[in-house]
Amino acid sequence: MLKRIGVLTSGGDSPGMNAAIRAVTRTVLYHNMEAIGIKRGFEGLIEGDLIPLTRSSVGGILLRGGTMLRTARSPRFILQEGIDLGISTLKNNNIDALVVIGGDGSFHGAKKLHTKGIRVVGIPGTIDNDMAGTDVTIGFDTACNTALDCIAKLRDTASSHDRMFIVEVMGRHAGFLALETGVACGAEFVLVPEIIVDIEALCKKIRYAKARGKTHSLVVLAEGVMSASELAIQLKGKCDYEPKIVVLGHLQRGGSPSCADAVLASKLGSFAVESLIEGKNGVMVGSIDGNIVASPLSHAWEHRRSLNSEMLSLLDILSI
Amino acid sequence: MLKRIGVLTSGGDSPGMNAAIRAVTRTVLYHNMEAIGIKRGFEGLIEGDLIPLTRSSVGGILLRGGTMLRTARSPRFILQEGIDLGISTLKNNNIDALVVIGGDGSFHGAKKLHTKGIRVVGIPGTIDNDMAGTDVTIGFDTACNTALDCIAKLRDTASSHDRMFIVEVMGRHAGFLALETGVACGAEFVLVPEIIVDIEALCKKIRYAKARGKTHSLVVLAEGVMSASELAIQLKGKCDYEPKIVVLGHLQRGGSPSCADAVLASKLGSFAVESLIEGKNGVMVGSIDGNIVASPLSHAWEHRRSLNSEMLSLLDILSI
Amino acid sequence: MLKRIGVLTSGGDSPGMNAAIRAVTRTVLYHNMEAIGIKRGFEGLIEGDLIPLTRSSVGGILLRGGTMLRTARSPRFILQEGIDLGISTLKNNNIDALVVIGGDGSFHGAKKLHTKGIRVVGIPGTIDNDMAGTDVTIGFDTACNTALDCIAKLRDTASSHDRMFIVEVMGRHAGFLALETGVACGAEFVLVPEIIVDIEALCKKIRYAKARGKTHSLVVLAEGVMSASELAIQLKGKCDYEPKIVVLGHLQRGGSPSCADAVLASKLGSFAVESLIEGKNGVMVGSIDGNIVASPLSHAWEHRRSLNSEMLSLLDILSI
Amino acid sequence: MLKRIGVLTSGGDSPGMNAAIRAVTRTVLYHNMEAIGIKRGFEGLIEGDLIPLTRSSVGGILLRGGTMLRTARSPRFILQEGIDLGISTLKNNNIDALVVIGGDGSFHGAKKLHTKGIRVVGIPGTIDNDMAGTDVTIGFDTACNTALDCIAKLRDTASSHDRMFIVEVMGRHAGFLALETGVACGAEFVLVPEIIVDIEALCKKIRYAKARGKTHSLVVLAEGVMSASELAIQLKGKCDYEPKIVVLGHLQRGGSPSCADAVLASKLGSFAVESLIEGKNGVMVGSIDGNIVASPLSHAWEHRRSLNSEMLSLLDILSI
Repeated sequence: MLKRIGVLTSGGDSPGMNAAIRAVTRTVLYHNMEAIGIKRGFEGLIEGDLIPLTRSSVGGILLRGGTMLRTARSPRFILQEGIDLGISTLKNNNIDALVVIGGDGSFHGAKKLHTKGIRVVGIPGTIDNDMAGTDVTIGFDTACNTALDCIAKLRDTASSHDRMFIVEVMGRHAGFLALETGVACGAEFVLVPEIIVDIEALCKKIRYAKARGKTHSLVVLAEGVMSASELAIQLKGKCDYEPKIVVLGHLQRGGSPSCADAVLASKLGSFAVESLIEGKNGVMVGSIDGNIVASPLSHAWEHRRSLNSEMLSLLDILSI
Repeated sequence: MLKRIGVLTSGGDSPGMNAAIRAVTRTVLYHNMEAIGIKRGFEGLIEGDLIPLTRSSVGGILLRGGTMLRTARSPRFILQEGIDLGISTLKNNNIDALVVIGGDGSFHGAKKLHTKGIRVVGIPGTIDNDMAGTDVTIGFDTACNTALDCIAKLRDTASSHDRMFIVEVMGRHAGFLALETGVACGAEFVLVPEIIVDIEALCKKIRYAKARGKTHSLVVLAEGVMSASELAIQLKGKCDYEPKIVVLGHLQRGGSPSCADAVLASKLGSFAVESLIEGKNGVMVGSIDGNIVASPLSHAWEHRRSLNSEMLSLLDILSI
Repeated sequence: MLKRIGVLTSGGDSPGMNAAIRAVTRTVLYHNMEAIGIKRGFEGLIEGDLIPLTRSSVGGILLRGGTMLRTARSPRFILQEGIDLGISTLKNNNIDALVVIGGDGSFHGAKKLHTKGIRVVGIPGTIDNDMAGTDVTIGFDTACNTALDCIAKLRDTASSHDRMFIVEVMGRHAGFLALETGVACGAEFVLVPEIIVDIEALCKKIRYAKARGKTHSLVVLAEGVMSASELAIQLKGKCDYEPKIVVLGHLQRGGSPSCADAVLASKLGSFAVESLIEGKNGVMVGSIDGNIVASPLSHAWEHRRSLNSEMLSLLDILSI
Repeated sequence: MLKRIGVLTSGGDSPGMNAAIRAVTRTVLYHNMEAIGIKRGFEGLIEGDLIPLTRSSVGGILLRGGTMLRTARSPRFILQEGIDLGISTLKNNNIDALVVIGGDGSFHGAKKLHTKGIRVVGIPGTIDNDMAGTDVTIGFDTACNTALDCIAKLRDTASSHDRMFIVEVMGRHAGFLALETGVACGAEFVLVPEIIVDIEALCKKIRYAKARGKTHSLVVLAEGVMSASELAIQLKGKCDYEPKIVVLGHLQRGGSPSCADAVLASKLGSFAVESLIEGKNGVMVGSIDGNIVASPLSHAWEHRRSLNSEMLSLLDILSI
């Protein structure tokens, strides 16, 4: 019988993490168990930095950006010593199971605990959307809306000044965020790490679009391809624009979660606890085709979700 | 061979309709056909109120709320005479096929044209999300975010003043918008037309929550249940609050589309034209489990999408 | 020598109240005094509902809507008994001076304490902007932006459907909010309590505008004139539209403060404490011509700020 | 008698420029004159790139970012030849007077035309707020709100990760935007060009704040001081953080104008035309202490508005 469940957030923060913490906590309390928050991810687990979570301590956090439990990357948790210290914290505090909210790096940490016999469930929270086992990660939709909002503002200036903008968006090694926002904002070009970039072909297209009457141009660049300043150097003198650069950076990670993210985080947080109660273990929860499901933690890094190639051809058609 | 394709928006406007018009137009032009806009829905079809759509005339509309073609409800189009006039407009202007963007009422109109031999494809655009044949309609996600944003502001005042708010949201006969925003904002109660409302039970819950220490309460009410003022009358004297009423109304229909809606509208708009080219006819396009698919127009009203009942129990757990 | 300063928020909440609480608290602490929060306005003063305010307890509230001290209207504080109880709370807790954040009703309460020998300073916080002694009250700018944002969304639908919208905005007995948002959104008509409404003349203008080619119409109505539904009844059959009604209601009071409100609240909160230290008493602080100044509390209700009449004629010119 | 008035936007775009164009146009039409738009600033004046402006061509632009007339910097207009060509365009098209919307560089151009006998009025439009002759320029308030919104999102991540962020904001040679947003967001430090930066003292303060328990730190840096990456290099190893950098860049220039900017632009645009009618010439219009006034064009660059030094000390008090 589970009596006490711990929850932590790890890796980069993403909008909706607080909604997930609230859902975990309230579902735990609903089933008459206790909820314990572990601060600063695996660092706090090693150091025993804990706080009890109550109905009211998670009241009002639902729509807040960031994570009330804070988060960190823990280099110590890669070593056996760190893992052992973490396990001690759980045992000493009678924590029967752990919910880990984060990206695939965080799930690696979770897997190590699982291997040592700790009951663990993972909730995918990252704006990069680069995890298998779920169609969408918590924070992705909000990050898309934030980036779109910023790019829409840049477009005002781009079209007023007859300019080219290169906008660098996040996404780590994946192009999901770039492709989604690129289609949504009507970018002329989207560069993603999944597709090899041909600078000559790109310049040709840019010049061709200008010849056809386009007076400005918007390039959405995934950080996984190269940096915006690097691209600007490669384009220099080859297309007819002096490009302006904007790096959206960390603001894509903040902000109140969108409706879709608040709902997804609520569902996954609650389902994670129900899964533990049902005896599931070593799994991640996710949303596949609209259903909330559990799959092995290792899915998150062993499989790779591929970009929707129809979106890429859609972009070519719509930006004519 | 198709040469000229018409497009109209009909019924209530929804955010993303312009993105769909742009996608239809640019896909038509990409295939070297002509695009003709029909203004004010079936009214404009009857009256022959047409404008040619070009690359640049749909430039810059992608993220704009409303519909550049305007929309209307057409009582005349229910009668045979109106339908015949509409068909004449199409024939006289050599329009080979028609794309209809709207809700199920609009699809009924489309079906009538189809029965008379007109090539027609429908694109589901409504904030109500009450159509089968697609998991989500264009505008629903934006409306959810708009409503959530408003309700979050009301919560500031509710918690500052120890008050109960009844927020009436749209959705016609369905509770999708109410349920989604209710879960996302952490409403204490959500009333939807799919579930019979028991006022006594509701009041008991409200009093019980207050007794447990909740100092304010938020009820999200779908317009399909009753009006907010009617609910306030029914609650009068039975729970310990003097409820404040807010009717979000038409502002849920406006605004720039969210990223998800801009992408969905772009995909469906483009796919609608590809479907016509492939010879499909009398169908609606939609997104099912992440795939863009075509189904018979009549699906939209013959089948009914049901509310996700897990969401309802989720709400009970999370609002404790 | 002052050692301990109390602060409360009273009346309707407004965005920026938390920023003012933070500024009061931190300025008090900066001068090595203690800050005490009094909850639920004069009700909490009567009941002795106090919390100490520290550097960290006001950390993170700067941009939050509502008021962390909560607020209430206190019918008991009109009676002598209530005032005496309030004074006892201050004396028993060694509170040397009080900062009251609120509208003119709250300043009446503050004045009563002042008359009884309590050191008091008022900070004008209300979205209505209807107080003399300051050019602008805390919350007005945010409320204007919130209302403008809503009306801009309604305009999408108005222009898509060829409709007339009547939008009722707050403002109590004054038309500041209506006039400011009306000019900003390009409303065709703005009705304010300061100007007598001539329904016949209004209808004539509406019909004339329609005759000239305007296909939709937006009327911004201050709640101080009449309700939107009353206006709709009065217009019925007299102009060529079937008006749609939207009552923005309490959402105008919520939300994160705008930059201008966060800055104004920070300045006034800090200056209120400095004023007390300098020995000022029975005054309100305000911003006049860009300078932060103190004036007698009674200014707030004895003088009346008048509407900018140039704005009214501007509206006539710009809405042609 | 004036019959035909030209209007252009020049220099960097700012939110509210379209609202000013609309106000100029409608006031011109109200007085039964003609309005001519000149595209791409002084470049379009040289090249004769004109469009007539009508009631409906400025309908719907009020709340749109950027400028419908586009804008440019014109190196040619510094030379006599360019100025002569510009004057020819005005004469050949019977344009009796010119309204120039832009920053001080644009007003230099306007002054040159004025010296040659052209009737000119300037409207201050820039997000930098660095012009005398007005308390505030069109676009400043919106840029402040945009920057604040972005910084608030960064704060989510800063506080979740125990990090220092350096946020570089615009403002050219002035610190208005940095100071206003720095106070509004509760930044720990604001660096402006008006005050010499002492890196050692800054690091000491940062270390002291950390010692006192602050786990994250936010530095708002005006671009006029140095770049964010330069500051990061200078801080390297001297304070206890590895700072993250965000450069807000051009997105501060875009977006829909705030309520205050839409109203200011409407007033100034209308007053500029009234001033021309009254025979004023070679002046800029501005808002001083809430009044709309005209002052010589040269005021914009001969005088300098100084930063509010009280804001700087306020920051020290509030960020404790």
